[in-house]
Amino acid sequence: MANPELPPDDLPVLGLDADDTLWENEARFHEVEGRFRDLMEPWADGTTTDSALLATERANIARHGYGVKGFVLSMIVTAVELSEGRVEGRWIGDIVSWGHEMLDHPVQLLDGVTDALDRLGTTHRLLVITKGDLNDQMGKVSRSGLADRFWRVEVVAEKDEASYAAVLDRHGVEPSAFVMVGNSVKSDVLPVLGIGGRAIHVPHTTTWALEEPDPVAVAAAEFPTVDRLADVADLLVARSAGRPS
Amino acid sequence: MANPELPPDDLPVLGLDADDTLWENEARFHEVEGRFRDLMEPWADGTTTDSALLATERANIARHGYGVKGFVLSMIVTAVELSEGRVEGRWIGDIVSWGHEMLDHPVQLLDGVTDALDRLGTTHRLLVITKGDLNDQMGKVSRSGLADRFWRVEVVAEKDEASYAAVLDRHGVEPSAFVMVGNSVKSDVLPVLGIGGRAIHVPHTTTWALEEPDPVAVAAAEFPTVDRLADVADLLVARSAGRPS
Repeated sequence: MANPELPPDDLPVLGLDADDTLWENEARFHEVEGRFRDLMEPWADGTTTDSALLATERANIARHGYGVKGFVLSMIVTAVELSEGRVEGRWIGDIVSWGHEMLDHPVQLLDGVTDALDRLGTTHRLLVITKGDLNDQMGKVSRSGLADRFWRVEVVAEKDEASYAAVLDRHGVEPSAFVMVGNSVKSDVLPVLGIGGRAIHVPHTTTWALEEPDPVAVAAAEFPTVDRLADVADLLVARSAGRPS
Repeated sequence: MANPELPPDDLPVLGLDADDTLWENEARFHEVEGRFRDLMEPWADGTTTDSALLATERANIARHGYGVKGFVLSMIVTAVELSEGRVEGRWIGDIVSWGHEMLDHPVQLLDGVTDALDRLGTTHRLLVITKGDLNDQMGKVSRSGLADRFWRVEVVAEKDEASYAAVLDRHGVEPSAFVMVGNSVKSDVLPVLGIGGRAIHVPHTTTWALEEPDPVAVAAAEFPTVDRLADVADLLVARSAGRPS
């Protein structure tokens, strides 16, 4: 079902988020947050632990960046603070080992992703744009078994207008010809609309507090939402046929 | 002193390492390793601590990647192991704060780097290729005040032949037309020679054990070594004039 109109190098570029768009991610963080609440029980109740961890993550995001290693460091800082330095080293060792478990975890693709990519790849060059830890993200791409389906993979430190503009410029893609697909309105939709591109929102189950978009910006933005990655191809076909989306 | 022969887009591409080629890096790690030895004194002498930390780093490099956050995690794992879990949480908190200090540290350019880049930039497009933590490396480029001098900046997870080949391909640079400059024979010289490029070694004071190159590969390789980045321009001029280097 290759597009007969265009040689592969001329196919339009479709941007794809990775975490929670192609594979599970947030759920692993939630699971470990549960263990962390249990560990902190001698010093704080679950709500206090959750708020303290989120506050630490927020205060350190510019230094830690996104990803597992920064999350582990934030848990450690929070554990030391909530316990007033009394948490034993062996428990801190456990926190690090949870991080190792997350880093080593097999990649669990979301339902229907492989088929959806196979279909999208006949009409588009697929450009993965993900943020987080470079080493971990490239490892997940490799372990996902999907690497051959991607035209390019970009890991960026932050998904804002400047980083999207830089990525598209570097790959010779006009923003007006670019569509981004992802689960985060804040990271995958709003900044792409902001530079004159288009975006399709594919929500996942949960959204991390630091990924909550500004509600005013969301209200002012227009973008389609579909249930699953498999629905993106239909939407793109409908659009290119001039039908309203 | 712009090259009158070529418009900027046609200038050859010169690759530059960043850590310990443009600015101090390894020295900060050494300084913190000293503090870590002191912290571990109740449980291990300095030599034991150094070996244990290096073993932890080596065992975790694929998961942790390069950079400050992985270094901090390795120190924590080592502290828990050497103390058999007895190290207090407050000391682990100190280890994390050393990491934060490293991440926040002002960038200290090596002597003569700004002038050397100004000169090299008249004859080459400057492509920084560095490995480590994406967030930290991009932050250092930004804080260095040098960003405007670089054509592109690439942070890679590992500096091996495959990653150099991918970076050059992505930027449309033929390996045979590419020269890389850096302080690490293992990361900046051998893999570039391996894909048919050239490289210039600019040694820095110390080399991390995991950056020690295979001596057999070094013996078989031919590459020039200069004392300072400022000498690279002279070497390139001498070469392009056909003089032996």
